[in-house]
Amino acid sequence: MFNKKIAIIGVGFMGGSLAGALKKKYPELRISGFARSQKSLKLLSKLAIVDEVSLDIKSVVLDSDIVVLALPVERIVEYLKVIKPYLKPGALVFDIGSTKAEIEKKAKLILPGTNCFVPCHPLVGSEKSGPRFSNPDLYKGALCVITASKSKKATIEIKALWESLGCRVIFMDSDRHDEIFCALSHFPHLLSFALTEFVPKEYAQYAPRSIRDLTRISNSPPSVWAEIFLANKKNLKNNINEFKRIIALFEKNINNSDREGLIRLLEQINKKQNQIQTNNFTSAK
Amino acid sequence: MFNKKIAIIGVGFMGGSLAGALKKKYPELRISGFARSQKSLKLLSKLAIVDEVSLDIKSVVLDSDIVVLALPVERIVEYLKVIKPYLKPGALVFDIGSTKAEIEKKAKLILPGTNCFVPCHPLVGSEKSGPRFSNPDLYKGALCVITASKSKKATIEIKALWESLGCRVIFMDSDRHDEIFCALSHFPHLLSFALTEFVPKEYAQYAPRSIRDLTRISNSPPSVWAEIFLANKKNLKNNINEFKRIIALFEKNINNSDREGLIRLLEQINKKQNQIQTNNFTSAK
Repeated sequence: MFNKKIAIIGVGFMGGSLAGALKKKYPELRISGFARSQKSLKLLSKLAIVDEVSLDIKSVVLDSDIVVLALPVERIVEYLKVIKPYLKPGALVFDIGSTKAEIEKKAKLILPGTNCFVPCHPLVGSEKSGPRFSNPDLYKGALCVITASKSKKATIEIKALWESLGCRVIFMDSDRHDEIFCALSHFPHLLSFALTEFVPKEYAQYAPRSIRDLTRISNSPPSVWAEIFLANKKNLKNNINEFKRIIALFEKNINNSDREGLIRLLEQINKKQNQIQTNNFTSAK
Repeated sequence: MFNKKIAIIGVGFMGGSLAGALKKKYPELRISGFARSQKSLKLLSKLAIVDEVSLDIKSVVLDSDIVVLALPVERIVEYLKVIKPYLKPGALVFDIGSTKAEIEKKAKLILPGTNCFVPCHPLVGSEKSGPRFSNPDLYKGALCVITASKSKKATIEIKALWESLGCRVIFMDSDRHDEIFCALSHFPHLLSFALTEFVPKEYAQYAPRSIRDLTRISNSPPSVWAEIFLANKKNLKNNINEFKRIIALFEKNINNSDREGLIRLLEQINKKQNQIQTNNFTSAK
């Protein structure tokens, strides 16, 4: 990685943390950050997470060996078009968005030929946002999903990069990725947002720890999550319908005052809870 | 509290923690525990959380100045009838159940006259159960709701007892209590149980932190929660319907691909999330 230049488009919580992690592991690396506004330029200059920061995307991308799109999902495709003319031959591009199928499909149309796009999803999101909260150790021990053919040279290189930062990399088809992480992350976020909306304002002062934990992630950034919900619409709608079916199971038992039926259901849930808690990966989110 | 005897009927996680907290604060106190089975008798003798333990409820209750019913909600009324003949005149009785209206109403019919019943709900529940997990510091800093007239002598005494263990005591009408804590605890538990049931088994291995946090409390004891759900049926049904209304709001925005509408909704939720996180009380659950 010596003498390489990496461009980070979107130096927020995740992009900033990636910059910090790369710098910690590879001090000789030149990391160039793109700022979308004067305000963000000032903040990034002050925080000094990247080696250089600019409002001019051309100068950021030019000569870069790797370009990282650390943007909300809707912006990734948009910026892929913007950076395309400035990419040097052989430069690798990857994103770190939470949905993959749509991005992968569109990226193939935008970047055929000499530049490889490797769709990545490191599972390290947080309800925090912005570069102020960035953490160079964020990626340590995290699961990173790559939705590209594992035999391609570009994929092998990006996989090695994630692993060198402490990630455990797995490969998955992008449709399957979106289905799994809709159920494990996107829909649960929707539930948490909905629970916060549900709580009557005047009750908030009595909130015990359980509901504080359940609503923690409902402080996640609105624009990021609005875009994830829309990008993964189909799976999300399936998840909502499946969840309604489960709520109806509870309703049936409760309406019938079926104590034994409820206990059986909860016992079965206790067992499954164990499987969810003892997964193989530790990841920040 | 010197020379007093306190009986604890149900020395599980909460009852055991209360015994430990009382003993720590008042070493001279004599704490007598009732065990419902040989197995539990053996365990409690080994753990030595209480001074004496017996399968004979009569000997446990006799001469007690205070009798604590630390039982699942459906058992509280049942055991109130069992202990009634052995209560000494003037002995105080309180429970620590999660629902209050039904218990309060029935207790009034069972214990008229010389023995006062003070319905209490310290907000310290946990997904843990059993005396092995009991913790003498569990009640420190916790909110404790008492649903009885605050001017009665018995209430004043029990309030002082909770406060001496580090609780913050508030008074509330039992119907209002059940409504508030259905929304803040009972319904959120149902949601967490339902979310665990919803997760496809083969996805569990990829579960990120967000869903692990959201499903933590779905390991709570089935019999305890089946009874809470049934005891607070009316409020729970209202909550389920209200939650469906909120899910429909999300569905509408998602179906219409209304990015701006979603962002407005999530922004409003971000604000409310803050109110829930910064409540006035710290409580274990």
